[in-house]
Amino acid sequence: MSEHFYSQLTWELPGSRPLIACNMVMSLDGKVTAGGALKPGSLGSPFDLETMHVIRSHFDAVLSGGQTVRQHPFYLGVPAELEGARRAKGLAFQPLSIVLTRSGQLQPDTPLFQNPPRPPLIITTPEGAASLPPEIEASSMVETLAEPTPAAVAQLLWEKHGVKRLLVEGGPSVNFQFMQAQILDELFITLAPKLVGLRSDLTLAMGGQLLPQPREVELLSVHRHGQELFLRYRLHWQ
Amino acid sequence: MSEHFYSQLTWELPGSRPLIACNMVMSLDGKVTAGGALKPGSLGSPFDLETMHVIRSHFDAVLSGGQTVRQHPFYLGVPAELEGARRAKGLAFQPLSIVLTRSGQLQPDTPLFQNPPRPPLIITTPEGAASLPPEIEASSMVETLAEPTPAAVAQLLWEKHGVKRLLVEGGPSVNFQFMQAQILDELFITLAPKLVGLRSDLTLAMGGQLLPQPREVELLSVHRHGQELFLRYRLHWQ
Repeated sequence: MSEHFYSQLTWELPGSRPLIACNMVMSLDGKVTAGGALKPGSLGSPFDLETMHVIRSHFDAVLSGGQTVRQHPFYLGVPAELEGARRAKGLAFQPLSIVLTRSGQLQPDTPLFQNPPRPPLIITTPEGAASLPPEIEASSMVETLAEPTPAAVAQLLWEKHGVKRLLVEGGPSVNFQFMQAQILDELFITLAPKLVGLRSDLTLAMGGQLLPQPREVELLSVHRHGQELFLRYRLHWQ
Repeated sequence: MSEHFYSQLTWELPGSRPLIACNMVMSLDGKVTAGGALKPGSLGSPFDLETMHVIRSHFDAVLSGGQTVRQHPFYLGVPAELEGARRAKGLAFQPLSIVLTRSGQLQPDTPLFQNPPRPPLIITTPEGAASLPPEIEASSMVETLAEPTPAAVAQLLWEKHGVKRLLVEGGPSVNFQFMQAQILDELFITLAPKLVGLRSDLTLAMGGQLLPQPREVELLSVHRHGQELFLRYRLHWQ
């Protein structure tokens, strides 16, 4: 995969918090789910899945919300063949999988908690921590925040877990919160040649208000593979 | 505008119905409205507006649903400087504006019905026709269909109005219906460097079921202008 167009990504780090990017695959009609399912492969091609792994290979940690993890309870890692490239860059062999969940309602008998390559990190509220099944507490790291806002999460990861590059992989509510907090630096979008159309399916960022507009949205690169487009945007907030 | 990348579009016509295309502008998070408004300029740049006009310049007729027209009651035409190019191609100086409305609830005192360059065509049900304000009946053509499905609309336009190329410009429900009927041949998408995020905003195609997948979705061209992307897809249904 060293030939992949994303194999050599580098970033200038913000300095006082992690660089934060989001990666999602979207249909031509703007949906990130098809029939309600938010999981790899429902919209993207095998090459998109490979691309997702290459993107992950640059990040210290990959974060998803509880709702997304309940639908797709897998470790947010990379295939073994990308572990060497990570080590060569000074990264841990696998990114840290992070679950952001207020409720703490997670299933212990799922692949994420059964023999993961690294113990996942659960970030939750004190109430959520009280709801965590004991098997998950035993196999995971747990951090509690009274108010787990994106800024608080970013600060915690930066100061206590050495996370310099954080990748956010949904769901729509989590993506929305990081954009609303104006700390999402980059957006990777795969535009898949698919139609969804179902009114109830989800979009990339969903919340109760219009999002603030970045000062500038810069289209860093456009790559085509077959009928899929791979787009990388920089969001300049200041 | 003769230098525009869409200034020379040509199509092979299907033969027994109009060629049908759809053109929409979408935010990075997949929305076609921002704060509920579906109108030119809310997401796209001035160049996107110019592009919309260049695309319209190739079509015999431009169709929108009643809901869209009620929000933005303007003639779906081209600027005067594109009229010569239309005539040179054997087209009428302006495309025919078509409103597809079951209810017939339209406002006569709006730009669409006040001194339009050509009388608009209202396609409605018998019940909708009975609801049309008399001023609109006087200034427009009215066609009634017991069941105004996309196939019935396409047949009517082909047989009775000489429409060989039909452009659909929303809203989401109308777009959905033409995709579900598997008679949408092309999809023009402008991907605007904007974030919307508001849960209630609309997506490009919205209906009650998952859409059928075309046999193939072919990415015909990718053009970049500033931070905007202009994409053209062919939908192969058979």
